[in-house]
Amino acid sequence: MKYRLNYQIQFMDCDEEGRLKLSALIKLMMHVSNLQLSSLGLGTKDFLAKNLGWVVTQYQFEFDRLPKGGEQVVLTTEAKGYNRFFCYRDFGVETKTGQTLITVHSQWVILDLVQRKMVRPTADLLSPLVQAEGVRGARLKRLRPLAEYDKKSTYLVRYDDLDTNHHVDNANYFVWMTEPLGRDFLNQHEPASLTIQFDQEVQYGQKVQSLLSLQDNLSQHEIKCADQKSALAKIKWRKADENTNA
Amino acid sequence: MKYRLNYQIQFMDCDEEGRLKLSALIKLMMHVSNLQLSSLGLGTKDFLAKNLGWVVTQYQFEFDRLPKGGEQVVLTTEAKGYNRFFCYRDFGVETKTGQTLITVHSQWVILDLVQRKMVRPTADLLSPLVQAEGVRGARLKRLRPLAEYDKKSTYLVRYDDLDTNHHVDNANYFVWMTEPLGRDFLNQHEPASLTIQFDQEVQYGQKVQSLLSLQDNLSQHEIKCADQKSALAKIKWRKADENTNA
Repeated sequence: MKYRLNYQIQFMDCDEEGRLKLSALIKLMMHVSNLQLSSLGLGTKDFLAKNLGWVVTQYQFEFDRLPKGGEQVVLTTEAKGYNRFFCYRDFGVETKTGQTLITVHSQWVILDLVQRKMVRPTADLLSPLVQAEGVRGARLKRLRPLAEYDKKSTYLVRYDDLDTNHHVDNANYFVWMTEPLGRDFLNQHEPASLTIQFDQEVQYGQKVQSLLSLQDNLSQHEIKCADQKSALAKIKWRKADENTNA
Repeated sequence: MKYRLNYQIQFMDCDEEGRLKLSALIKLMMHVSNLQLSSLGLGTKDFLAKNLGWVVTQYQFEFDRLPKGGEQVVLTTEAKGYNRFFCYRDFGVETKTGQTLITVHSQWVILDLVQRKMVRPTADLLSPLVQAEGVRGARLKRLRPLAEYDKKSTYLVRYDDLDTNHHVDNANYFVWMTEPLGRDFLNQHEPASLTIQFDQEVQYGQKVQSLLSLQDNLSQHEIKCADQKSALAKIKWRKADENTNA
């Protein structure tokens, strides 16, 4: 049951080179999955009424290229099953003619917003999205932190960073992680692949440290908060002009 | 010639109370005006091809209430004429049944992106949007800075803050200005009216100072950068529960 949405990339969702921002991509993925889930009575609003929230714990991206402002694309999403801890979901961004631009695998938990605890996925809770326990597709690889990083930057968690789950919107992690790479690097490169995992929530008003190591177009990232590991990521970059499909 | 777009407010565009963020509202206004302008060959993409950009210099908002996540609204926009410096444009957010939620007046300049200079609006450049010089509607009031403010906060201009005009996206000013009010105030209040004017661009990598004075539910704001006035705003707030239409 693949859900598809025709969408024109907004200029306001693009970086200064006109490419879709990673933070905006995350937002679009949330939007399209929420459209599918809402149509089945399992959306953000439906879950909020039960004090439940969908929370992503991991994303794995492959980029053929980033779509550009004004470009017509098709956003896709598909549930890939669940086990006793996690739900799995794929996303895609395609051109109008069906060429794949971005492929994403993701892993989610269902959170009890009052008790701040994970809720076990069940067929009862998730029907009619999925009928029985089981996962189709590959498992996502876990990341390990580096012993040392080359660069440390500090960001303050803002009110603007909070979402309707009363926690920090995941899109912010992409901003905190990539900012330390700087304007020149970011303009001259595009991600080829990206894995990110979310381990520990950060809170409004806290300071987060964004740790970075960059070597041979592989950047490794850790977000730390109050000396705790909050998130890890690994991004393989390529020169923007090496892109064969641009 | 009023342009209308049906739109469902995305949860990712809302604050933790589920209300549309001001920064997201700005983004939606840009989107709907760009849709109208593009349909007439005057959109961001068309202008970029001529090294031109649309730049807002002032907004004046009246809020009946902020729309909520999941709500179906109608976004409207309408060109209100031009004089030898400025173009004028109104925006609106309405419920599906035609109740006005937000009314916005705005003033724009056309910027030569290479020379970083204002371009004079002409019927030739702006046809078929408007046929002749002249402005319908009220003039926007200019703001004055305060001699002193109560609170000073500092923000770093991020790569993520840049837009396709290679300058800082106006939506960021709303974040810099409102953050110092803090989570409790922002959750418990809503804007009733807001005027903002943009005087001087800020640049990537610069530090901006967000100056704030708050008295009797009127907040006054100045964004300073390298000791220069960059933007001013004045916001009248009301208690979120005083909202008669909630």
